Amino acid sequence: MPRDATTTVSPDDYPFAHRVRVRFAETDAMAIAHHASYLPWLEEARVAFLRAIGYPYASIRADGLDFAVVEATVRYLRPARFDDELAVHVGVADPPRATFALAYLLRRGDETMATARTVHAAVAPDGSARRPPEFITDPSLRVR
Amino acid sequence: MPRDATTTVSPDDYPFAHRVRVRFAETDAMAIAHHASYLPWLEEARVAFLRAIGYPYASIRADGLDFAVVEATVRYLRPARFDDELAVHVGVADPPRATFALAYLLRRGDETMATARTVHAAVAPDGSARRPPEFITDPSLRVR
Amino acid sequence: MPRDATTTVSPDDYPFAHRVRVRFAETDAMAIAHHASYLPWLEEARVAFLRAIGYPYASIRADGLDFAVVEATVRYLRPARFDDELAVHVGVADPPRATFALAYLLRRGDETMATARTVHAAVAPDGSARRPPEFITDPSLRVR
Amino acid sequence: MPRDATTTVSPDDYPFAHRVRVRFAETDAMAIAHHASYLPWLEEARVAFLRAIGYPYASIRADGLDFAVVEATVRYLRPARFDDELAVHVGVADPPRATFALAYLLRRGDETMATARTVHAAVAPDGSARRPPEFITDPSLRVR
Repeated sequence: MPRDATTTVSPDDYPFAHRVRVRFAETDAMAIAHHASYLPWLEEARVAFLRAIGYPYASIRADGLDFAVVEATVRYLRPARFDDELAVHVGVADPPRATFALAYLLRRGDETMATARTVHAAVAPDGSARRPPEFITDPSLRVR
Repeated sequence: MPRDATTTVSPDDYPFAHRVRVRFAETDAMAIAHHASYLPWLEEARVAFLRAIGYPYASIRADGLDFAVVEATVRYLRPARFDDELAVHVGVADPPRATFALAYLLRRGDETMATARTVHAAVAPDGSARRPPEFITDPSLRVR
Repeated sequence: MPRDATTTVSPDDYPFAHRVRVRFAETDAMAIAHHASYLPWLEEARVAFLRAIGYPYASIRADGLDFAVVEATVRYLRPARFDDELAVHVGVADPPRATFALAYLLRRGDETMATARTVHAAVAPDGSARRPPEFITDPSLRVR
Repeated sequence: MPRDATTTVSPDDYPFAHRVRVRFAETDAMAIAHHASYLPWLEEARVAFLRAIGYPYASIRADGLDFAVVEATVRYLRPARFDDELAVHVGVADPPRATFALAYLLRRGDETMATARTVHAAVAPDGSARRPPEFITDPSLRVR
């Protein structure tokens, strides 16, 4: 997959989906969801995904590990609006390397709203690199 | 001063002022600054105030002290809009107790935009109470 | 009820509850939920409450009405942390006047985490005052 | 320039710089600036850039034009911390097309903190496409 937010827009290609509803606080004076609001949604979906696969992020952090975000890209396709319910589909994106990546597809009903990609590094509290978590090699968690 | 956000709307009554400019990200679909945006402005003004009086918050925190927010009240008088430049006036509000308080006046030019009040407790990293900082007894830093 | 965030801490006194989970984006360097994060939670609970009583906020806005926030107060009792699930209890707080008020109780399990109060004015898009919505006189929606 | 956040890390290559200071509200429980905080900084720098070149965004919007964000990428190189002062360097990035792009370099003193890129479309309030603004063809505003 390329380094930008290009990813499949077929929801069935993702192993997990999480629903968010656009808060009024997340809108802006264009009467749409502000583009910065998407990153916390991706994060919330990521945390829900980790919990669902038995990897709750709070306990990862308690174990002294963090998944630092080293890159984030969002491609905004259609504006989301206040009170919209969005499905955030998520899955592992890249072959394992020093970093790992997740890809995202945001849909409102059948509409593709946005695609996204975040790149993470596993780091210790002192910032030193750790091995990526094992789930990133699990084929069932990958975007097809 | 009462416990709510009632405070003097005369800017000369405050020992310090800090300027903020409304970000587009801080607006909402009513095309005004979202009400939650004000708390980070108060905080930014508070941090600038502490720096100006020789009490930089980063070094307070490095000394193992935090000023936890135990109460916050904002009274919204006029809507602020994207790109507005606001003066956030700030000063010590209350007679010293276990907690201490700051009062705020937000103005756009000569217009009173909002008043606010935050109540803080000095706490150690473990959450235990500490003595309030000495500046809160300094008469020159108080709202008149 | 007084003008500040004093409200009953018995969840049974509220006609409605909404659940939120603390996002990582909502924490701060004290490793707790930042105090400004609470206002969007109150708003999300308010919107869910309005939807539940047949008053979806998106259609209220489509009808040219807004519930402007004219005052907000939060009393922070216990720090909330990343991934905490909180119940936000909400109900109508005040006798009807030109403005109307909602009161909130935030709990994590059986712990009281925070209380809050928001005051609203019904306004037309041009900012002129409108009559408060009728639900605020419904005794079943009031905080006891 | 590639589609991701790859851009020159030499500040002299940018026609404009804007300073931001990391708010406490923008930190997270890793005690660093949360990755979503960067997008409002880029936006604030973009708005300041537009103002500096005689293109104040508020009047652009008053003219019925918006610069919708259609893509955003940030590459996070070093964590920024509370109260850090950052210089956000900004300039036009791409040859004009239907969209236009800006590139960003974030520095703390002499350290490269992050690079970024946002892609915009000029749109009318009804969402229909408009011609990109003329400044994007001005060679003096381009990243070298």
